[in-house]
Amino acid sequence: MQLIEQGNQEAIRRMLSAEPVLIDVVPAKEIVPGLKDRMILHAGPPITWDRMCGPMQGAIAGIIVFEGWAKDLDAALDMAAAGEIEFDPNHHHDAVGPMTGMTTVSQPMLVVENKTGGNRAYCAINEGLGKVMRFGGNDQEVLNRLAWIRDVLGPGMGGALREMGGIELKPLIARGLSMGDEMHQRNVACSGLVLRAIASSMAKTSKDATALSEALAFISANDQFHLNIAMAMGKAIMDPLRDIEGSSIVTAMSRNGTEFGIRVSGTGDEWFTAPVEMPEGLYFAGYTEADANPDMGDSTIVETIGLGGFAMGASPAVAGFVGAGAASEAANYTHRMGEICASENPEWTIPAMDYLGVPTGIDIRLVVETGIVPTINTGIAHREPGVGQVGAGVVRAPMACFEQAVRRLAEKLGIS
Amino acid sequence: MQLIEQGNQEAIRRMLSAEPVLIDVVPAKEIVPGLKDRMILHAGPPITWDRMCGPMQGAIAGIIVFEGWAKDLDAALDMAAAGEIEFDPNHHHDAVGPMTGMTTVSQPMLVVENKTGGNRAYCAINEGLGKVMRFGGNDQEVLNRLAWIRDVLGPGMGGALREMGGIELKPLIARGLSMGDEMHQRNVACSGLVLRAIASSMAKTSKDATALSEALAFISANDQFHLNIAMAMGKAIMDPLRDIEGSSIVTAMSRNGTEFGIRVSGTGDEWFTAPVEMPEGLYFAGYTEADANPDMGDSTIVETIGLGGFAMGASPAVAGFVGAGAASEAANYTHRMGEICASENPEWTIPAMDYLGVPTGIDIRLVVETGIVPTINTGIAHREPGVGQVGAGVVRAPMACFEQAVRRLAEKLGIS
Repeated sequence: MQLIEQGNQEAIRRMLSAEPVLIDVVPAKEIVPGLKDRMILHAGPPITWDRMCGPMQGAIAGIIVFEGWAKDLDAALDMAAAGEIEFDPNHHHDAVGPMTGMTTVSQPMLVVENKTGGNRAYCAINEGLGKVMRFGGNDQEVLNRLAWIRDVLGPGMGGALREMGGIELKPLIARGLSMGDEMHQRNVACSGLVLRAIASSMAKTSKDATALSEALAFISANDQFHLNIAMAMGKAIMDPLRDIEGSSIVTAMSRNGTEFGIRVSGTGDEWFTAPVEMPEGLYFAGYTEADANPDMGDSTIVETIGLGGFAMGASPAVAGFVGAGAASEAANYTHRMGEICASENPEWTIPAMDYLGVPTGIDIRLVVETGIVPTINTGIAHREPGVGQVGAGVVRAPMACFEQAVRRLAEKLGIS
Repeated sequence: MQLIEQGNQEAIRRMLSAEPVLIDVVPAKEIVPGLKDRMILHAGPPITWDRMCGPMQGAIAGIIVFEGWAKDLDAALDMAAAGEIEFDPNHHHDAVGPMTGMTTVSQPMLVVENKTGGNRAYCAINEGLGKVMRFGGNDQEVLNRLAWIRDVLGPGMGGALREMGGIELKPLIARGLSMGDEMHQRNVACSGLVLRAIASSMAKTSKDATALSEALAFISANDQFHLNIAMAMGKAIMDPLRDIEGSSIVTAMSRNGTEFGIRVSGTGDEWFTAPVEMPEGLYFAGYTEADANPDMGDSTIVETIGLGGFAMGASPAVAGFVGAGAASEAANYTHRMGEICASENPEWTIPAMDYLGVPTGIDIRLVVETGIVPTINTGIAHREPGVGQVGAGVVRAPMACFEQAVRRLAEKLGIS
């Protein structure tokens, strides 16, 4: 047991001492380790084509066309089904992706460097809301937007970030928490803070006024623009914890739309999976629960670092958006998540809760002991390929993942 | 009494139906009614040179030099003392100004149009924090910044606003309230929202990349950038209430650093004044209460429309900044201000208070009956000319203003 305590102490130390900085935007083929042509990285734990959900298959068809590997969506689906595409989780390549989480060679990747750990993590740029690839959208409008992100926005942001020396994310998140963001389903404040940080530098480094105006308009109009930055940050913070002997702290939670998977510090890169649950939430006009795909995406890395559902108390406005009850009760979620965490983050505090630090370091032992599973604020995708987002809600991590992990950790430590 | 109720109903109707839009930035000489050369508009009710406080005299000396009416600060002081400058309150010219509130011919003015009332209101652009003219700063750095605002930022913002058709402020404030702003001492969210609204258009209309980059950097770095917009908005909302028979609703609260003055709907443009109080607050490093000037500025127009100290519940983070007690108790201020207001604003709500509308329409009768005076969140200026801001705090409106106003209204209505 002392080994576990020591391991967790070290895990928390690494989490809290992380210094994540958004330093660049670089095409995936130049920077994501192990990423190859005709390879698609997806959200969640490993999964084969035949077991993938509708929106993930839809996104895959779309990204195949986007990369020019097939001429249309039908040909792309044939190609994927014929085994001509290699699939692998983002998490196996220092990367993360929201919802379907498509990462392929030509996409521009946000680069977050953890200055303390010396490691880097990657995530594609947020596409906006509605019919977008991460929610399974794949028509020409979606592909055109991805092309513009690849050709205009990505290079523009990369140039600005290099010129200005990057954006420190730890203080940005601290500010965002005082501005009503929980950084999963609400990123409006942090998206504005990112714009404030980068706009002047984008103007300084831009060669084309029209491109600049479009890029600023795109960032400005996207309330979730910061989500993907938060995700790359989460991955950069958690990766240095990936193999601490004895530690029972969760290093990743992730879903592929079929299964929910977690990784734990003391058990290294092993996934503990269980069928993913359905979010309970609110649906956009014209959609109901019958349209919803089960929970999906690597974005749960945000909860893994104490934000999202864990920081609900900072974000009373999100409680209504995800159907989590009265705004004034948002703090209850944070208190509850505190019961399954080993620590609090003294630098990420919630003013309305008298500057309580967000719950930090999910301890699988506490999850199993208390019966409280992590609460996740999530977007909801349509279950059919090609449609997009239909709502937002709250979903629980399946207890079975944590039970398996506890057993495996005990086994590894020789505890019966 | 029925006349009062009817008057107040109409007053509240006008307040809540206002549609303030930031439409332009225009040099004061072209747009502020009655403003002339060698005329300086100041904050608060009318005051003569000899009774003005240190920072206001300091600002006046600075703005005289800025306008080129005197060659240096000493000559400017002589000029002011010799009666060669005409002084008038901003409020007498459809304008407002924070702290010292200097308005002169060459300054670029934010133009807020109230689409419902058809009226316009004006405020200079926020200069940033620290040593700035509104806090009595007047050295070359301060004047250079004002020149840059006049020559670069003002025209840049004006061009963008005209191109984009303006920024609707009512929904912007609604968002800001869900992001921790109370729009007096905390404007970080709204400042970011303004940047998001205007950045792309500034890029589209800019002719000069360096100027654009500087302008975006200036807006981005100033957490109080939105304050002056909120003030012009407040004036634009309240001016249509200036002469409703019988109404006991406050239409303006304002301070010149010596006296606090209020105006009431049913008594027209008459000022009811009393000596201004000292803010209780927190001081920047190196300063104490002994350095502080009494309360000053037209910015109390923000409280007059239900924001600032009235919306403290939206802004737990500001409670600490102004020394108003525990963050979790911020809602108490809003509840208390609700006791002296005739209504709530259904479009400006506070998520953390389960979407309670901000208190709207200060009723002088309720102030006198309850003994509760308006709570104002304010910046604190150094009492000497030329220094600048030294802290922030909370200050109370003097009860004597409200007592006088109640007596005058009763007299006017023939009530003994």
